[in-house]
Amino acid sequence: MSSTRESAAAADVRAAARRGDLTGPTAGLATGFTQANLVVLPRDDAFDFLRFCVRNPRPCPVLEVTDPGSTEPAQTAPGADLRTDLPRYRVWRDGEAAGEPTDVREHWRADLVAFLIGCSFTFERALLADEIPVRHIELGLNVPMYRTAIECAPAGRFAGPMVVSMRPMTPAQAVRATQITTRYPSVHGAPVHVGDPGAIGIADLARPDYGEAVPVHDGEIPVFWACGVTPQAVAAASRPALMITHAPGHMFVTDMPDARLAAL
Amino acid sequence: MSSTRESAAAADVRAAARRGDLTGPTAGLATGFTQANLVVLPRDDAFDFLRFCVRNPRPCPVLEVTDPGSTEPAQTAPGADLRTDLPRYRVWRDGEAAGEPTDVREHWRADLVAFLIGCSFTFERALLADEIPVRHIELGLNVPMYRTAIECAPAGRFAGPMVVSMRPMTPAQAVRATQITTRYPSVHGAPVHVGDPGAIGIADLARPDYGEAVPVHDGEIPVFWACGVTPQAVAAASRPALMITHAPGHMFVTDMPDARLAAL
Repeated sequence: MSSTRESAAAADVRAAARRGDLTGPTAGLATGFTQANLVVLPRDDAFDFLRFCVRNPRPCPVLEVTDPGSTEPAQTAPGADLRTDLPRYRVWRDGEAAGEPTDVREHWRADLVAFLIGCSFTFERALLADEIPVRHIELGLNVPMYRTAIECAPAGRFAGPMVVSMRPMTPAQAVRATQITTRYPSVHGAPVHVGDPGAIGIADLARPDYGEAVPVHDGEIPVFWACGVTPQAVAAASRPALMITHAPGHMFVTDMPDARLAAL
Repeated sequence: MSSTRESAAAADVRAAARRGDLTGPTAGLATGFTQANLVVLPRDDAFDFLRFCVRNPRPCPVLEVTDPGSTEPAQTAPGADLRTDLPRYRVWRDGEAAGEPTDVREHWRADLVAFLIGCSFTFERALLADEIPVRHIELGLNVPMYRTAIECAPAGRFAGPMVVSMRPMTPAQAVRATQITTRYPSVHGAPVHVGDPGAIGIADLARPDYGEAVPVHDGEIPVFWACGVTPQAVAAASRPALMITHAPGHMFVTDMPDARLAAL
């Protein structure tokens, strides 16, 4: 989807991961190229999971889904190998995390289907480009994430609550952030909620279910976006015999420029 | 997705089809509610077909996909029955049209999966609302549609060329039409081509592959949008043992207001 020249930085990150030279998080690497969440499931589960994603596009925006057994994301990173090109994976057995290898060749099977799902890095870059502050980035923390009372539309064995990420902003910034993220439907799009955390079932902003808490200052409101942790949490809760995902923060770097995800 | 009161007009259309009182085309009925293309396939084909749609969102925007065996589009028209609520169907056997019944209860099986796919009626209403003329509507004709040299991204047994619809406009109208249809990604979105038909493999605008030809006046250019005939043509070409679709022009009327499909 982009020339060799343009996507060299992205290919370099994948090659370093493949060689074992890169085993850490990908935040800040290959700036301008879209990073993606990875969920790999056996074919028997994959049709249900794809229906789940199609029914819940805010938390589960599908950037690409592979053919069963294929290790190549032919649309977003032709030639890449999803078994080796992420710096670190998490392997799940019966819904429990069972290791964080840097390569999953030994776990791969001919019936596996890989899902690449949009990640908030893309819209955070767009926010920062317009000087909308992003608190957790300023503080060098992980974004705070919360399970909500918003139930996803179920599909087959896949069901569960939406997980959201939160960024505190002034109301004026929240309006501008809504405009900016509306342009990026394939990386979660516009906020799903603004203001009162209790209205979506969040008891205490200081105690996120994932990531780290950040302060909400006077004059700010919490702004909530659907989060890519949702599909992984829902998939794990269904306890598939085998599931492979990226390790948190260790994303797949595609050849797709962030700019291409802008709907307008 | 909308109150009983709001969607009464849509429910009335479906009820008339169910009773057998409505067996004709749906254009102009329940104005303001989204109409959809229908493709029904056995589960064995449905996962490949859903991947095909996800890979080709311009021609194949999925509004809803049902669970195997379910006859209810729970998201876009809760309580409706896809076996009876369209005015006319087309039943396909081994890729050949094999009848146009007004009810498909006798053909239904527990392994069937239904796809509702966005239709250009929604964006045509948005064009007309801004006084962009739509030639085939002015002339009371079917929109002209053409097979192109643009190959869709294949998935499993599903592969083939993109079919496009064409509307002639002045260049200024084409720019405004691009802005307007960009707002509607789930009903084909922005044009895929403007101008020279030969550049996308169309030999003669006067000889459409589907629908009826319309004149392109001096000072106008042809504007091409991805068309919902694509998934039906691709599915038929794969010669599934059984496929059920709407008969041309006899769409499924959902409870979803067109306005809700606007991305912004």
